[in-house]
Order: sequence, then structure tokens, then C-alpha cells
Amino acid sequence: MRIAIASDHAAIDLKAELRDWMIEQGHEVADLGPDTTDSVDYPDYGYKLASVVADGTAERGVALCGSGIGISIAINRNPACRSALVSEPLSAELARSHNDANVIAMGARLTGSDMAKACLEAFLSTDFLGDRHQRRVDKLSNPEM
Amino acid sequence: MRIAIASDHAAIDLKAELRDWMIEQGHEVADLGPDTTDSVDYPDYGYKLASVVADGTAERGVALCGSGIGISIAINRNPACRSALVSEPLSAELARSHNDANVIAMGARLTGSDMAKACLEAFLSTDFLGDRHQRRVDKLSNPEM
Repeated sequence: MRIAIASDHAAIDLKAELRDWMIEQGHEVADLGPDTTDSVDYPDYGYKLASVVADGTAERGVALCGSGIGISIAINRNPACRSALVSEPLSAELARSHNDANVIAMGARLTGSDMAKACLEAFLSTDFLGDRHQRRVDKLSNPEM
Repeated sequence: MRIAIASDHAAIDLKAELRDWMIEQGHEVADLGPDTTDSVDYPDYGYKLASVVADGTAERGVALCGSGIGISIAINRNPACRSALVSEPLSAELARSHNDANVIAMGARLTGSDMAKACLEAFLSTDFLGDRHQRRVDKLSNPEM
């Protein structure tokens, strides 16, 4: 799968570990940065990731920041993205099977790297169930605000 | 505080329990539904909650569905809302102190009612830190997509 990964400065170590793990699994991974621990703003990297998922350059996205909350909000500003913030694999599985999530978000200061890999594995290996869930997912692409 | 709460059919029991608890704590609570276990679509209730937070009718929002994922995505479609999906109090605290979250989302099928109350208490009692976090929060209101 073509997967893009992005983070803020708080999550560059977890980003490198998950990136390398996905490459080992045979995925084509684009690392959108950052590359250093210099302080950056998570919305900048969230919007960057959202745009490559929205235009199809990436089929899936992985978004990381300290808690995962901020970058996940940024990504969900884009109606083409469905970013699920998770900390355990059952949520990652439900995000795919019920919500057809195309981005997984995690918090590098809250979720350890082995748990993050288990979440990512569930996210990458679970299919969307469709059916009644499809109507709800369609509504997420058409906010009536 | 003026607080609105909404859910889907999977979370009406937790919604009633959190609503009653917030009223006991002295808050003014608007329950936006649903009232029965008839199947509904979480985006409908998410958009409803987002609009009353966005227009200031409610100062804060509480959003519940089975996993919390779907309704939280719906709410974050509205640039005036910052919805944080949490399952433990540290995330609820960080959502306020770092992200100035105005909506807390939780999964009724994943998070028990006492844990949900502890999260809600942290969400309602923690102040935003401002400073460098303010610039990032401002960017969340102005998606450059």
C-alpha cells in the first residue's frame, strides 16, 4: 500500500520506527517530516498529510503528535479524510470496519511503540464492512454545517 | 457551564448517566438526543452538536457513539470545534491544556462509565495553557487545505 506518515517534533522517534516497520512489511512509505526535534506546529504537518490522502497520492495516512489529538483534529478538517485517534488495536480495527478510516492517529507520549505497531497492523489489515456503515461514512464526506 | 451532549443509539445509557452527573455538578445541560435505541446515524448527531458549540449556545460539548471515532470525525468537520476522542483522563487533560478542546468524545462500548466520568471531570476542570499552543489552535480554525 502507498502510505504517508507525518508527525510533529514530539513524535519523530515513533515516526521513524513505524516508517521502517511499514517498509519491512512491503509498503511504499512517504515520510512527510519533520526530520529534526526543532519545534513545529502539528496543524502544518496534519494538513500536509491530509492533502496527499485526499488527492490519492497516499492510500492511507499515519499521523503522530504528543497526544495524537491535535494532528487528528487538523486532518479531519479535510472532508476526504477520516482520521481515527487510537491507543489500542480494537479501536484501530473498528475505525476500519465501521468508519472506513483512511488515517490512523496516535500519541507518541502516551502509546508505546509495540502498542502503536499492533494498532497500525490492525488498521492496515482490516476491511471496511460497508452496508449501513457506508451511509454514515458518506455523510462524513458531506458535512451539513 | 452550558454543556450540550449528543450520541448515537449505541451510547444512550452512557449519555443519560453523564448528563445526570453534569446536572448534579451544577452545569446547565442540553441533551440533543437520541432518546431511544432506534438506529440512527452518528454524523447527524455530531453535526447537531457541532453547530450549537460553534454558535456559542453551548460552551462545551460531549459526544458519544460506540467507539467515539465516527461522531468525533463529524464534529471536527466544523472548524469552530476541536473534538478530542479520549479513553483516560490524561488525554482529556491534555486535550484542554494543549488543544483547547471544546468537545470531548468517548466510546460507550469501549470506555466504562466511571472512567468516562473521570475523563469528563478532567475535561471540565482543566484550563487551556495558551502561549505556543495558541498559535497551533488558531491554525486549527483556519485549515489551509
